[in-house]
Amino acid sequence: MSRAAAVLSEAQTADAALRARAALVVPGGMWGHLNAARLPEGYPQFFASAEGCRVRDVDGREYIDFMCSWGPVLLGHRHPEVEAAAQAQAALGDCLNGPGEVMVDLAEDFVAMAPHADWAMFQKNGGDATTACVTIARAGTGRRKVLVARGAYHGALPWCSPSVAGVTSEDRAHLVHFEYNDVASLRAAAAEAGNDLAAILVTGFRHDMGRDLELPTAEFAKSARAACDAAGAALILDEVRTGLRLDLRGSWEALGVRPDLAAWSKAIANGYALAAVTGNDRFRDAATKVFVTGSFWCGAVAMAAARATLRIARETDVPGHIHAMGLRLREGLASLASQHGIAIRQSGPPQMPLMLFDADPEVRKGRAFCSTALRHGAFFHPQHNMFLSAAHQAADIDQALEAAAHGFRAVRELR
Amino acid sequence: MSRAAAVLSEAQTADAALRARAALVVPGGMWGHLNAARLPEGYPQFFASAEGCRVRDVDGREYIDFMCSWGPVLLGHRHPEVEAAAQAQAALGDCLNGPGEVMVDLAEDFVAMAPHADWAMFQKNGGDATTACVTIARAGTGRRKVLVARGAYHGALPWCSPSVAGVTSEDRAHLVHFEYNDVASLRAAAAEAGNDLAAILVTGFRHDMGRDLELPTAEFAKSARAACDAAGAALILDEVRTGLRLDLRGSWEALGVRPDLAAWSKAIANGYALAAVTGNDRFRDAATKVFVTGSFWCGAVAMAAARATLRIARETDVPGHIHAMGLRLREGLASLASQHGIAIRQSGPPQMPLMLFDADPEVRKGRAFCSTALRHGAFFHPQHNMFLSAAHQAADIDQALEAAAHGFRAVRELR
Repeated sequence: MSRAAAVLSEAQTADAALRARAALVVPGGMWGHLNAARLPEGYPQFFASAEGCRVRDVDGREYIDFMCSWGPVLLGHRHPEVEAAAQAQAALGDCLNGPGEVMVDLAEDFVAMAPHADWAMFQKNGGDATTACVTIARAGTGRRKVLVARGAYHGALPWCSPSVAGVTSEDRAHLVHFEYNDVASLRAAAAEAGNDLAAILVTGFRHDMGRDLELPTAEFAKSARAACDAAGAALILDEVRTGLRLDLRGSWEALGVRPDLAAWSKAIANGYALAAVTGNDRFRDAATKVFVTGSFWCGAVAMAAARATLRIARETDVPGHIHAMGLRLREGLASLASQHGIAIRQSGPPQMPLMLFDADPEVRKGRAFCSTALRHGAFFHPQHNMFLSAAHQAADIDQALEAAAHGFRAVRELR
Repeated sequence: MSRAAAVLSEAQTADAALRARAALVVPGGMWGHLNAARLPEGYPQFFASAEGCRVRDVDGREYIDFMCSWGPVLLGHRHPEVEAAAQAQAALGDCLNGPGEVMVDLAEDFVAMAPHADWAMFQKNGGDATTACVTIARAGTGRRKVLVARGAYHGALPWCSPSVAGVTSEDRAHLVHFEYNDVASLRAAAAEAGNDLAAILVTGFRHDMGRDLELPTAEFAKSARAACDAAGAALILDEVRTGLRLDLRGSWEALGVRPDLAAWSKAIANGYALAAVTGNDRFRDAATKVFVTGSFWCGAVAMAAARATLRIARETDVPGHIHAMGLRLREGLASLASQHGIAIRQSGPPQMPLMLFDADPEVRKGRAFCSTALRHGAFFHPQHNMFLSAAHQAADIDQALEAAAHGFRAVRELR
C-alpha cells in the first residue's frame, strides 16, 4: 500500500482523507488565508461545489455561505448570466496573442462606473493591482515614500505581506505607517515622508483581521486627499476587498473624496480571476511608462464575466440588496445575542459584517459560535469580515439565524 | 457624436477602431509585452478567436500562430480535452471557500512529474511563482542575496521588472548579477554574496529578447548546483517560459541537475491562468512558514485544465512532437534563407525557436520578414523566442514556410 493509500484508508471523512494526502504534497497542507487550520473546529478544508449562496464541502455538507470565497462571489456562486457570458467568450478564445474587444469594453465600463477613473488596466491578483498602483504613483511623482495604515492588508507580496518570513527590510524601506482614521498620525506620516511622498495607500474601510471594523470618517478621508494634494502625491484607494459591495462608484464617493488611483479585484468578475487598476489623467502617462504585465492578463473570459458582473451589479443595485440582507442578519444576530444574554459587537458595513464577542481575547466564544453554527448549516467566520452576495435572500438569512441561535446556545454553555 | 463614436467612424479596420477606443481608456492603448506598438507593421492588437494552431484577429484574418499566446498555449488553442475538463469543473464550482480535491490531485501530478519535487503550491502569475521561490529561499536560509543573470526576465514586479519606472533601488538591493553560461561570473557573484547567499535564480535557457538564444552548458548548470550546495543556498529554476516544452521532468534534468525550487506558469494549464512552485523537502518548512496567497489561487477550473494538460503532455510526448515540428520549421527556414541568399541565425531549442538576421542591428530585416509573412498568414516574432504547440502539424509548418518565403523575398528587396 502506498503512503497516500495508507493515509486514506485511515481517514473518516473525505475532507480528512484529502487533508492527509495534501499534507504530503502541499506545504502545511494548504497555503495562506485558505488554510483551514486557522478556522474553528469542524470547518472543512476542501469544497466540492456551490450554487447561489450555498456551498458544499467534499463530504456533501451544504452551508449558507457568508464568506463568498473570501470576497470574489458577489452575485452568488455560478450566477447564470455571468456563466453564460464567460462560456460565450470561452467558445471563441480566452488567452490569445493579445486582448479581445472585451478588454476595451470593460475599460469603458470601469471609466463609466467610477467617477475618478479616466482609464483602466487589468491584472490577475489584488496584489498585482495594489503593486501596480504604487509603481505608477512612484513613476508619476518621481518619489518613493508610500503611507500605509498599520495592520492594513494590501496583499501577500514581500512589500506588503502580513508576515516577515522571507522578507527583507529593504522590501519595505519606503513605507511609512499611520493609524487608520487618525488624522494626526496621517499628517505626521506625511510630514515624515516630506518631499519624497509618492502616495497614500488606504483601504475602503478598516478591515484588519480580528478587530472591530471601522468605516472611514469623512475627516480622515478628506485629510488623506488634502495631504496628497498638498504634496502632489497620489491617493490610492485599495478597493480589492470593498469594490462593488459598498458603492459602485467607489467606496469613498459618498464621502466626497476621489482617489487618483484605485485597485480592484475579488468581486469584479464574480469569482473569475481578475484585478484592475483605474486612474485619472494625472497618472495616465505614468501608467503608460511603467512595465506591468502578465501572461494571462489579457484573458478574455474573466473580462467577459466582469462585464456581466458590473452590468448586473448596476442594474439590480447589488450594494443596496446586500446592504438590506446584511442589516437583516445584523438585526437578527443582535436580537439572538440579547435573548441569550450574550454581549457582542457588530461592526463594519452591513454588506461585509463582523460579529465579535465581548470578553473573548482567545476567540473561544467566537470559535464555539462558528463551529456550532457550521454544524447547523451556516458558514460564518469568527474574526474576518464576512461577505454578503446578491444570492442571499431573506429566507436564507432567516435560516442562517436559526443556525446562529444554536451557536449562541453553545457560547452560553461554555465555561 | 461621442468621442468614441467619432474615433470609430474614422477607422478603416476593426483593429484600428478598437485601438482608437483603447487609446482613450487604457494607458498607451495596451500594457506590457502585449502592446502591439512594439511589433512590426501590420500586426493586429486585438484578437477574436483561436482554434488549434490558428488564431484570428478582429478583422477576420487567420494566422498560423507561432506565439501561442506568448507561451501559455501548449496543446493548441481550445484543446477539446482541456476544455472538457475545465467545463466539468466549472459546472461544480471554481473559486470556493477553499480548494477542491483537484488541488491535491494536481500537486500529486507535479510531484510525480518533476523528480526534484516533493511538494507543490499554486498561484496565478509566473511572477507570483518566481517571487514565492525567492521568498521561500530567503525564509529557508535566513539569507538575503539572490543571484540572477543579467538581462534575464523573471516577471514584471518591481524586484525583477525589465523597466526601472516606478522602481526603487531598494527593490533590487539584494540582487547580484552574473552572465548566463559564464561560470567565472557565476562564481564571482556567489563570492560577492558570500555567506548571505540565499539563492541562484536561473531560467531553463537564456531567452533574453533580441539576442541569440543559448542553451545552458552542462558545466554552467553543474556549477550553479555546486555553488548552491557549497553555500547551503537554493537553486531556483525559472521554468515559467520553458516548462513542459523542453522536458516534462524539468529543463535541466537531462543535464543531471535538479533545482531545489522551480517556478512554473504559462503552459501548465494550456492558457488557463495558473502558476506553480515545486520544491524539495529541504524547503518544505520554509514554504509552510511564508505567507503567500491570492484570492483566486484555489480556483479549481484552471487546476482541472492543468491536470488534463499535464496528462496529455505526458501521454502524447508533447515535447517530442513540438521538437520535431520546430526542427521542420528550422530546416525549412534555413533552406529558404539559403535559396534567397540571406544570412540568418537560428537559436534556442526547436520547441521555442528564434530566427535573427545577420547584420540587422535595427531589426529592419526581421520586421520586413515578419510583416510580409503575417500578410501571408504566418504569425512570427522578429525578436522574441517563438513557441510551438502540439496542434502544429507538418502541413501547418509547410504552409507557414510558404508565408516565410514571401518574407525572405521582402528582405531581399529591402535597400
